[in-house]
Formats: sequence, C-alpha cells, structure tokens
Amino acid sequence: MESITQVTDLQSIFVEIDNSFDEIVSWRRYLHQHPELSFEETETAKYIADKLESFGLEVKKNIGGNGLIGILTGVQPGKTIALRADFDALPIEDEKEVPYKSVNPGVMHACGHDGHTTALLGTAQVLSKYRDKVKGKVIFIFQPAEEKPPGGAKFMIEENVLEDVDYVFAAHLDSKVPIGKVSVGEGYKMAAVDKFEIKIQGLGGHGARPQDSVDSIVIGSEIVNSLQKIVSRRINPLESAVVTIGVFHAGSAFNIIADTAKLEGTVRTFSESVRKQVREEIYSIVKGITEGFHANAEIDYLHGYPALYNHPKESYLVQQLLSDVFGEDQVIDIETSMGAEDFSYFLLEKPGTYFKVGSNNEDESTHYPHHHPKFDFDERALLNIQKSFVQIVAHYLF
Amino acid sequence: MESITQVTDLQSIFVEIDNSFDEIVSWRRYLHQHPELSFEETETAKYIADKLESFGLEVKKNIGGNGLIGILTGVQPGKTIALRADFDALPIEDEKEVPYKSVNPGVMHACGHDGHTTALLGTAQVLSKYRDKVKGKVIFIFQPAEEKPPGGAKFMIEENVLEDVDYVFAAHLDSKVPIGKVSVGEGYKMAAVDKFEIKIQGLGGHGARPQDSVDSIVIGSEIVNSLQKIVSRRINPLESAVVTIGVFHAGSAFNIIADTAKLEGTVRTFSESVRKQVREEIYSIVKGITEGFHANAEIDYLHGYPALYNHPKESYLVQQLLSDVFGEDQVIDIETSMGAEDFSYFLLEKPGTYFKVGSNNEDESTHYPHHHPKFDFDERALLNIQKSFVQIVAHYLF
Amino acid sequence: MESITQVTDLQSIFVEIDNSFDEIVSWRRYLHQHPELSFEETETAKYIADKLESFGLEVKKNIGGNGLIGILTGVQPGKTIALRADFDALPIEDEKEVPYKSVNPGVMHACGHDGHTTALLGTAQVLSKYRDKVKGKVIFIFQPAEEKPPGGAKFMIEENVLEDVDYVFAAHLDSKVPIGKVSVGEGYKMAAVDKFEIKIQGLGGHGARPQDSVDSIVIGSEIVNSLQKIVSRRINPLESAVVTIGVFHAGSAFNIIADTAKLEGTVRTFSESVRKQVREEIYSIVKGITEGFHANAEIDYLHGYPALYNHPKESYLVQQLLSDVFGEDQVIDIETSMGAEDFSYFLLEKPGTYFKVGSNNEDESTHYPHHHPKFDFDERALLNIQKSFVQIVAHYLF
Amino acid sequence: MESITQVTDLQSIFVEIDNSFDEIVSWRRYLHQHPELSFEETETAKYIADKLESFGLEVKKNIGGNGLIGILTGVQPGKTIALRADFDALPIEDEKEVPYKSVNPGVMHACGHDGHTTALLGTAQVLSKYRDKVKGKVIFIFQPAEEKPPGGAKFMIEENVLEDVDYVFAAHLDSKVPIGKVSVGEGYKMAAVDKFEIKIQGLGGHGARPQDSVDSIVIGSEIVNSLQKIVSRRINPLESAVVTIGVFHAGSAFNIIADTAKLEGTVRTFSESVRKQVREEIYSIVKGITEGFHANAEIDYLHGYPALYNHPKESYLVQQLLSDVFGEDQVIDIETSMGAEDFSYFLLEKPGTYFKVGSNNEDESTHYPHHHPKFDFDERALLNIQKSFVQIVAHYLF
Repeated sequence: MESITQVTDLQSIFVEIDNSFDEIVSWRRYLHQHPELSFEETETAKYIADKLESFGLEVKKNIGGNGLIGILTGVQPGKTIALRADFDALPIEDEKEVPYKSVNPGVMHACGHDGHTTALLGTAQVLSKYRDKVKGKVIFIFQPAEEKPPGGAKFMIEENVLEDVDYVFAAHLDSKVPIGKVSVGEGYKMAAVDKFEIKIQGLGGHGARPQDSVDSIVIGSEIVNSLQKIVSRRINPLESAVVTIGVFHAGSAFNIIADTAKLEGTVRTFSESVRKQVREEIYSIVKGITEGFHANAEIDYLHGYPALYNHPKESYLVQQLLSDVFGEDQVIDIETSMGAEDFSYFLLEKPGTYFKVGSNNEDESTHYPHHHPKFDFDERALLNIQKSFVQIVAHYLF
Repeated sequence: MESITQVTDLQSIFVEIDNSFDEIVSWRRYLHQHPELSFEETETAKYIADKLESFGLEVKKNIGGNGLIGILTGVQPGKTIALRADFDALPIEDEKEVPYKSVNPGVMHACGHDGHTTALLGTAQVLSKYRDKVKGKVIFIFQPAEEKPPGGAKFMIEENVLEDVDYVFAAHLDSKVPIGKVSVGEGYKMAAVDKFEIKIQGLGGHGARPQDSVDSIVIGSEIVNSLQKIVSRRINPLESAVVTIGVFHAGSAFNIIADTAKLEGTVRTFSESVRKQVREEIYSIVKGITEGFHANAEIDYLHGYPALYNHPKESYLVQQLLSDVFGEDQVIDIETSMGAEDFSYFLLEKPGTYFKVGSNNEDESTHYPHHHPKFDFDERALLNIQKSFVQIVAHYLF
Repeated sequence: MESITQVTDLQSIFVEIDNSFDEIVSWRRYLHQHPELSFEETETAKYIADKLESFGLEVKKNIGGNGLIGILTGVQPGKTIALRADFDALPIEDEKEVPYKSVNPGVMHACGHDGHTTALLGTAQVLSKYRDKVKGKVIFIFQPAEEKPPGGAKFMIEENVLEDVDYVFAAHLDSKVPIGKVSVGEGYKMAAVDKFEIKIQGLGGHGARPQDSVDSIVIGSEIVNSLQKIVSRRINPLESAVVTIGVFHAGSAFNIIADTAKLEGTVRTFSESVRKQVREEIYSIVKGITEGFHANAEIDYLHGYPALYNHPKESYLVQQLLSDVFGEDQVIDIETSMGAEDFSYFLLEKPGTYFKVGSNNEDESTHYPHHHPKFDFDERALLNIQKSFVQIVAHYLF
Repeated sequence: MESITQVTDLQSIFVEIDNSFDEIVSWRRYLHQHPELSFEETETAKYIADKLESFGLEVKKNIGGNGLIGILTGVQPGKTIALRADFDALPIEDEKEVPYKSVNPGVMHACGHDGHTTALLGTAQVLSKYRDKVKGKVIFIFQPAEEKPPGGAKFMIEENVLEDVDYVFAAHLDSKVPIGKVSVGEGYKMAAVDKFEIKIQGLGGHGARPQDSVDSIVIGSEIVNSLQKIVSRRINPLESAVVTIGVFHAGSAFNIIADTAKLEGTVRTFSESVRKQVREEIYSIVKGITEGFHANAEIDYLHGYPALYNHPKESYLVQQLLSDVFGEDQVIDIETSMGAEDFSYFLLEKPGTYFKVGSNNEDESTHYPHHHPKFDFDERALLNIQKSFVQIVAHYLF
C-alpha cells in the first residue's frame, strides 16, 4: 500500500517554530494570567484579534458571541482547512505559585485552553509567512465557551464558520501523556452529554401520617434505583452509557414528609440511538413510578454536546502525518472517554479529527489532571501542536 | 350500672354436662380418627346428622354443600340463637401416637374442628332435654370447609341458614390458653384474607442480550420491593395490614432472560376501607412499574374471608356470661390475629361474637400450635364450650 | 357496679368559674399576644409566677429551665395531685386578624398552650379560694418547651417536681372536637418520637466515571427503599410504627457523583420493644447496604419523647368524672395519634391521664388544625378545662 | 508498507477443493443426520478418526474425552499450525424437512458444528496431498463438547494438544453473513461466561406474621435490584459487562413466607479485571443485604469459558490472507458478541484468531439463527472454510 501522506519538507518551518518558543510562551503566560469565564471572554477575544491582525490575516469577530476567526487565503485556489482552538477559562482558583498565576480571582485556565489558543496563534503566525505555498485557505477558528453548555461551537457554526470548510481539526493538551507523544484515533472518542432534572411532586404532610401524604423521597429513591436498570438492562452491553444522578434534594425537616424531590443528573452516550433510547427510558420509568405512587413528575431534559466522532479517514491520515513529524513510536491511540467536548459539533458538520498532545514531563507540576487548581503543562507542547497543525495544513494545501 | 346478665341457675345442667364427659370424648375421638378434607366431609356430615336426629331435633342437610343444621324449637316463642361449629379437617399427616390417631392417611383434625363439632353436638344433646325451658329457637349450625376458601360459611348463608336468627355465636379451642380460661373481646379479631396472583409478561431472550428482552425477574423484583411501600407509606399506621408475597417463580435457565414471572401473595386487613385501599395500591403499583419497563401484568385478585368482627354489645354480654360460669379471672381478652376464620361471614349478617376456649394443660401434647401434626387438646375444654353455649342460650331463651 | 366517683356538689364552684370568664379571657389574650419560643419563655414564666403569687400560692421558679410550679397546700393531709399546663409557642407567623394577634413577629401560640396555661391559672385561682376543703396538696405545673425536643417535661421531672405526687393530669385543647365535648381514654394515645440522621460517606467523582466513585445517592436511595421493609416486614402488623425520611440531601452538581448523602427521619412507635426493634433494624439495614456497596455510614439516633400512656384506672376515673360534669354523651374516646407530647414523661413516673377538651364552634376560625397560622379556639373551652381539673381534684382531695 | 502476506499460487488447490464439493457435502450430511450431544460424541469421533486415517494422517484419539487430532508432518521442518473444529450437537429437535434431517430425536446440529468438522476434514484431505510442500506440521484438532461448559477445549489442552503449536486458528459459520463473505477482527470478540447460584436462607412463616419470619422473597428481590448497580455504577462504561438473573424460584404457597429463595444467573465480561470485579461485587452486595436483613446466603460461582481474544497480529494477517482469497470487499469486521465460545481457551495459550464464514444465501432456510430448530446453511461455505485454512497454512508452511 502506498503511503497516503505526501512527503513535504517542513523542516525549515519547524525550526522557525522552535525559534519562536520564547515569544509563544510570553503569549501563553499573558493569557494564563488573564483568564475569563465562558461567555465572558471579551478581552481574550480582543487579544486574539490583535494578534491575528498583526499577522496580516483577515479577521472576523463576534461570531456567535465572542468567537472569532482568522483567514489565511493562499495564492492559489484549493481546499479549505479549519483549525480550532478554544479560549475560555474555568471558575477555579489558581493555586499554583508561578509568576504567570491568574490575576483574576476564582478564574483559571485549568484545562489548557490558553495553550490551545497560543498554539493556534503561533500556527497562524508561522503559516502567514508561507502564504505563497498555500493552495486554498486556512481558517483559524477561536472558539469561546467550550466549558459551559450550550458551548460556543454551536453558535459559531450557526454563523456559518464552516461554510466552505473541507476539513476541520483540533488539538487538546493531555497531562496524562508525556511531552513528545501525541494520541490519535478514529470513532467515538468523547461522549454526548445530556442533562436532566426531574421534579417529583408528591404531597407533603406530617411525618407521623404517611397515609395522608405522597412521599416524594420514597418515590425519588425508587426512581434512582429504577434508573440503574437502563444501563444494566436496556442498553446493549457492547455500547456505552452512563446515567448519573448527581443531585437529590428533598425535604426541609426530619419529621415532615417532603412534598417535592428534585433530582438532577447527566447522561453520557456515544451513539445517537443509544442516546435517544436512554432519554426515552428515563421518561418511561419516571412516568410509570410516579403514576404508580400517585405523584407527578416534570422532566427537563437538555441535550448537551453530541458525542465526538473522529472521522476514520482523516484520523488515519493524521496518525500517519504525526508519525512523520514525531516518529511512529510517539503516536499512540487516543483514549476514549465519557467526558465531553463541543468540538464534536464541528465534526458533525465536516470531516476531521481531534487529537491530543502530551504535555507532562518529569516535573510534578505538569502531572495534575485537567481542571485541577494546580494544573500546568510543559510549554514545549505548544510547539508540538503548531507542528502538527502545520503538517496537516501542508498535506492538504502545500 | 345494672348487670346485663340475668342470673339463671344452670348448675344442674352443668352437672349433666360434666357427667356426659365419657360419651362426649368417645364422639370426639371417633371424629378425630375419621377426618375428612374441606368440601369432602360427607361421612362426618352423616355422623352429625345421625346424632342430631337421635336427640330428636329437626335436621336439615346438604345446605350449601355438606353443611347441616339441627333445630331446637322451644315451647314458647322467642328469639332465635344460632351456634356454629366447623367440621372439616386438614391435609396434614397425623403424627401423634394415640389410640384415636387419624386412620385417613394425610388427613388430620389438626385445628380442633372435631372438638368444636363434638361440643356443639353435646350442647344440642343437653339442650334438647331442656326444651320446655326454651322460649324461642336454637339453630345448631354445622359448617364444613372452614379451612379452604371460599369456605363453607358463605354457601350456608346463601342458603338462608341465618334467615330468622337473632344472634350467632361460635367458639374455638385455643392451645395457647390454659384449660379453664376463655377469651372474649369486641371489635376486629381476625383479618380479612385476600389472595392475589400477578403474572408479569416480559420478553424472554438470551442472558447475554438484555437489550433485546424485557426482564420479568428484574421487574418482578421491583414490584416486590414497591409493594412494601403500601404498608409502610399508604396505610394509616394505626390500622393493620399485611402484604405478603409467598411465591416468586420465574425462569428456567441461568442464562436465559425469563419472559414471565409469577408472584402469588396474600393481603390481610381488618377494615374494609383499608382492604380496598391495599387492593387499589397493588393494582396501581403493578401497572406503573410494568408500564415503566415495557412489560404487561395480569392480576388475579380474590377476596377471601372478610375480617371477623365481634359485635361490642354481644361480646360484652358473653364476657359477663362467661365470667358467671368460669369466674371473672378466667375470662381474658381474646388475642387479635392477622389469621382468618370464615365465621366472619356470619357476623357480617347477625350480631354475635366469636370466643376462644383454653385447651392446654400441663401435658406437652396440648401445647402444639393449631395445624401442627401433633396438635391435641385437653378434652375437658369440650365441656367448657358446652357450658358457654348453654349459658348464652339460657340468657336469651330461658 | 357502684360508681367509682364520689358525688360532690361542685355547682357553686362551677358557677364561680363561669363568672370568671372575662378575666380568664383577658389573661389568655395577653398570653396570646406575647408568645415566646420554646426554651425562651422567660416573660411568660414571670407572668405565670405573678399570677400564682397573687393567688397566695407557694411558687417555685426556674425548675429545669423556665419551668415553675404553684403549690396549694390543703388544710388537712391527703394525696398530692399534679395538674400540668405547657406554655411555649411556635415559630409561626400569626395570620389571624384579631385584636389579640401576636405582637412577636414569627412567633405564635398556634397550638393552644396559651389556653392550657390560662385554664390552669384559672384552676389555681379558684381552688385557692377553697383551700379549706382540700385534704392534701395540688401542684400546678407550668412546663415550658413542649414543642421542641428534648422538651421541658424531662428537665422539670429531673428537678423532682413529681417527688411527692400521687397522680398527674393534663388537658389539651382539640380543634377537631366541638366545644362541650371532652375525650378520654386508656392506653397508648400518642407515639414515641425519635429522630435519626444517616450520613452516607461514599466517594465523589466525575459523573461520567461511576466506576471510580461510590455513589452516595444510589446508596442512599437503596437505604430509603430498604427502610420501608422495617414497617412492612419486621414489625408485628398489630403494632404501630412509622419510619419517615423527611430529608434527603446529596450532591451539588448534575454531573458530579455525590460523595455524601444526608438522610434525616423520624420514627414513631408506641411500645418500647417495637421502638427498640425499629432502631436496631435501621442500624442493621444501613450497615448491610453501605458495606455491600463499599460506603460508610454514620447514624445519629436521638430518642425523643416516649409514647404517651394513659393509665387505665385513672383514665376510667376521669371518664366517669367528666361524664358527671358534662354529661355522658359529651365524653368521647380520645383519638390515638402517631404525634407526640412530652406529658408522656410525667405519665412514665406517676399514674394519671391526658385528656382533650373540644374547642371548635360553628365559627370557621375555630376549626383550623393546631399549628396552623390561623389557629384559634372557642374560649369557653378554658372553662371546661377548669371544671375538669376542679372535678378531678375534688374527687381526690375534697 | 510491504504486504505481510506472501503471495503463493494456491489456485490449483482451490480448484481441487471446489471439485471435492459433492464428497464434502456427503460427509456433512452424514454428520448432520447423526448428531450427538456434548460429551457423548463417540460415533462422530470414530467417523472423524476413520476419515483422518484414510487420508494417511497420524491420528491420536480420546484426548480429554472424545477429542482427537490428526497430524500432518511436512517433509521439511518448520512451524506447527493448529486448526480446530468442534463436533458436538445440541439438545434441539430438528424441524427441517430435508433428506439429511437428524435421525436422533431431540438432538440436532443446530449450530453448524457438522460443517466445521466437515470443512476441517476436507482441509486435512486436500493438504495431505500436498505434504511435500509443507515445511512444519499441521495439527487438525477435532474438539468435542463446545456447547456445554466446562467444554471440551480445556480438557484437550490439558492433554497437551497445543504443546508444540505455534499458531492456532478456527472458523465458525455465520448465518447472518452472506455466502462469500468472511469476518475477521482483533481483540475481545466473545465474552467470558460465568454462572452463579445464590441461595438465600431466610426463615419461613405464616404469611400473616411477617415479624416472625425472614422473608427470602423480599430479600431476593432487593438483591436482584441491587445487582443491577454493578453494571450501572461499578463497571467502567467503556467496558462491557452483563449480569443476568435467569431464575428466581421461591415459595410454595401464597400465604406462607418463603424460607429460601434461589437465584441463578450469568455474568458476561471481556477483560479479566472486569470479570473479577463483577464477581467480587456480587459477593459484596449479597453479603451486605442478607446481613442487613438477618438472612444468610450461599453463593456458588462457576467460571465458564474465558473471553475469546483474537490476537492482533494474527488477526491482521488473516484479514490480509482472506482478502487475497475472497477479495478485499468480502472481508468484513467480525461482530463482537456477549456470547461464548471455548476456542477462547486455545487463544489463551497460543497466538491465533477465530474468524467467521458467511453461510446464508437467498434461500430463507439459510437465514435462521444458530440454535434454531430449522438452522441450515449454504454448503458452499464449507469450501470457503477449507480455502481459508489452506491459505493460512500455506502462508506459514509452504
């Protein structure tokens, strides 16, 4: 079989990327110090826009909120490749003791979005210098609000950022993978995440007179128990599904029968048919049990991000391309997770893949899990993201 | 307050009863040796009829099956008092080593109905000699099939045995109460007993493919759990109710999902409103859960004997009357029980009461619980039943 | 049977009671306007003390908190009779539109303790005028904090208020019973009330990764379900028991598995053996399920008021005495309730009874249930309490 | 990348295979007419032995029961390749109307083992003619008792049939796949299957007296409910696991509390760690709940076949080899299933793979699922198995 990747000599560009390390780090640290919460990332968006404009790119702002894109139009016609980074931060207090610690109390780039943004800016900077090699277009998508459903991806897509795009790619730092390695793979890699609230309306009463009440706690407990049977009995064991009830709040006094109980939970699935089935089973079980016990229930079911599906062909391609860049041994299988990522919306629209870039080193500070108040990463990972993106773009457009 | 009982000198009659002991015992032992199952008591009925006829009483046979009555018509008009005994035996192997052991394999008078019948025959014999004192009538009701629902009482009543009756009484031996004592009391004393069968129709399938099945065992188990909440949550805690599932049968192989599950159970209650409510709750819960889990259920709900209700006025009267006979200290409160007794049908129709007569002595053989394969009793208890009945009849009719 | 009550001509005293109506009402309304919460009733105690002193009684204050007693010592030796009233109010906003509406925001005499206190003061006032008739002593017990466990009764008893007492009685208004009627009865009439808290310690985690967590909500729900089986399966159906979980609080976010769940509940029982058994079963079930699911649980189990047991002899006596006062038709059976009352502590120590005095009339305002923000009563009921108390005292001491 | 398969011209052998069709079919139909149950396949074994001997192969019989092998020793030294077929039938009544219908009542080759055996015999016949090309050995393994745990594979391996084997392969007919297609794939493809029995020992009693009993049905039902939580909460949702209770038998009468309940079920898993965890959770839950409710439980847990794991390298190889034979489009992914297959034991010992060969055509008779009483297959599939085996052998040994 012939290799599907075209060999292109990108070594000089990669050297240039390596040489930009100090500048790139300064960008990242500035962003790290100035994190902004989802849907509130106005200053970050401005920072990105300024940079993109300084690279001579066409910039479109306020796309579906704080989203923005930079457009690199090549000298010849060709495909359009979109690269996406997210740039919102988390409501977490930064507990690191570093000079670039967050200056915004209670807000922190604890997931690495500062890194994603910086690396995509770096990619834009370097590619803008090689415009004459580009046949087609590169769209640099800077997406806000990944951390908070309904997320920023959906709104940007509704504003047609993918209109003429042929392929779309994104990279994510991974503190569980060592620096130098990247992980890639096809198929469902992150779950669809839905949220539900069940409000059970019983009838309150004196704790000594159950017969005059409809005990919402007993009914709620039976529902919690019954919902377990969706995963254990209704779903194909070869499929994955999670039904978690994270909140059970009912009652105000030990001796009063609670009139209402509120359950909140999440559903995680990969396939749309399983997703649909879980939802239907929840409705069916809640209806059956509340009716059986003379109560009522209201269900508020919100569809969150869909499952993230890495397209097989593009995943295989990226695996090959990154093997060329980093060596075959450095490219590992991406872990499947029941977590969520709104890049999935982009992959519903266009072929592409989502890969991860290792970011830990021998230093303990780079091993904290994402969303940890001490999360940090080996900044050389930014160079690896840039090289990955450049390699991908070069494959299609050089 | 004036005593409600009339003092009548029955001492000579009581002496006569005592003197009949050997004869009475011979009757009882004959019956004990020749027990017959419920609805099959043809020989016993014949034995009773022969005796009643030998006392010169009018006898009516085959009333609602093997039932029969003897009628003692007094010389003057007056009230009509019914006294009832039951005469069926149980499908139990007699394990006693006594000369009067059952000769019918697997059949035994393990509840004392032989005693009840004998004592009522004895009462009829002695009262038939005092007919000239009687103002009114005594109906001696010999009822078959007390042990097996739908029971014999119902059918005898449907044949109008209570038509002209003013009051009705019955006595039961009690192996937990010492000889000499009797127990009496007003209100609900034995439970209504209903039977239900729930057939859950799921969808069978391979044990490895739950998603293609509707697991009747899981649904049945949830129903068993949920039915507990009727007693714990739906019924006034000051009322009594029992919901027991005695049978759970489902499945034929460890690795096949059972398509059907069969539950059988019993409901015990006192008040009719609670009885009705429990039934309704069972239907509601079974419907809710099976619908919630995509199964179907059929419920077969049979109303058995109603609760036995001792009428307050007659119970108080009998308490007083028996105090006169046995001494105040010997008359104790009758124990309430969730067990059943179809004399309850008689008490739904006419005022009266059901009392118990102690039958144990220092001998171990008299302490076995009713329905035990070694059950036996102190035969002097028969005399006490006779004296009780005579005292009651005398109060009303002498 | 001879009447057990001595006929004493109390008509002149009763007339005197009737004549004091306006004064009594003024006291009650003053108290109603100035309610104080349990354990905070200092001003009410002072008011009571002042009154008792004004009647020339010996007063002992600050007994077990805000409790106090007035002592009426007769001219001759004899028995000692204790009469008890409670005087705390509830944390309820008074919603009545009457001139004597509570002036203390959020505090209200919504159970009628103002009435009990007033009536006992009236009784003390009138009896203090008939001291020369009294052979023995009357102790007027004014008890604080009935509404809030551990209650005031226990502490007063620990201070020996019952030391030389022979019999103890209390009356309670009843808005469900019409003015003129009183209700009396023997045996367990109100329940023992216990409180429990169960803290389930699981292991929190991401909602998408149940395998790394111990889900305290699922375990808590199973416990709620299993606790139902105490009442349905472990307790004699002829006994009464309630196990209510009034509070289920767990979790802070829909997509995080809750590490802890807190359940709070109450147990209601009559007999001490059932009370003990329910407690033991709770411990056993919670231990079994938490261990089975790798969680831990802490149970905090507080014994509240014991069951209120009306002594048979004194209850029968009071029934007769009140029949003499109000007429036989006006004396009805007191309703058994799973509610609680700390007068039970007094009845554990001394024979006596607790009876209720009807307080509603044709006016809607007198029909609200106790603890309702519009609760009120026909003030003539106060006269009936006084007459009842006087009749009881006269029986023993005149 | 270089192809890993060596191109060998096997066309003449394949023609020879095609030409043997009538003979092969006659063997298969003979076997189909004479099915024998697991562990009773003595005549089938004799038939196979006769054939193998007629091909001039070395035959070893009665290996681990009715198992046998034929050995083809090449003319030069080399690797040893094992090919395995199973030859037991099922306790199913043959409902087909064909001349080769089973003559043994209630026994039927309803899974296609007659085909597997025939095709392996055919492979042995043809390869025995090309012995001069063979460098190494081929072991033709004929295994009895695949359908009935503990199965025949285990015992044959214990008799060292794999001692000098380098690779092992097996093929299975698949009535869901059209004739001409084959399915291959790496990783876990069939589940480990375990069996468990749980005997709950409660305490029997009268249905009206739950307080004197320990209700094994209620406890069993709670266990069934709780076991659902293993799959729903304890197992990684990215792994597969099934816990099915197929049997729940308890109780003999509607009004008697059942003293024991018997549950039987199966566990299906792929990874050994999940398998171990499910078992441990079952023990933990059963212990917790029975202890919590004062019952005892005995668990009998039998490990059945392990999961079938297709080794990646050999699976990929076979995919390539079969693509060469049948064309790339005809080689599809093998379906993963929670079913079981004791070829898994062979793959625990030696590298190799298990693949499936499509056997349905346009005729309805070839579409029945395996184990159906009308199961049948397109006999040309036998040729495809033979060609597959020859291709594999040729790759290693020619």
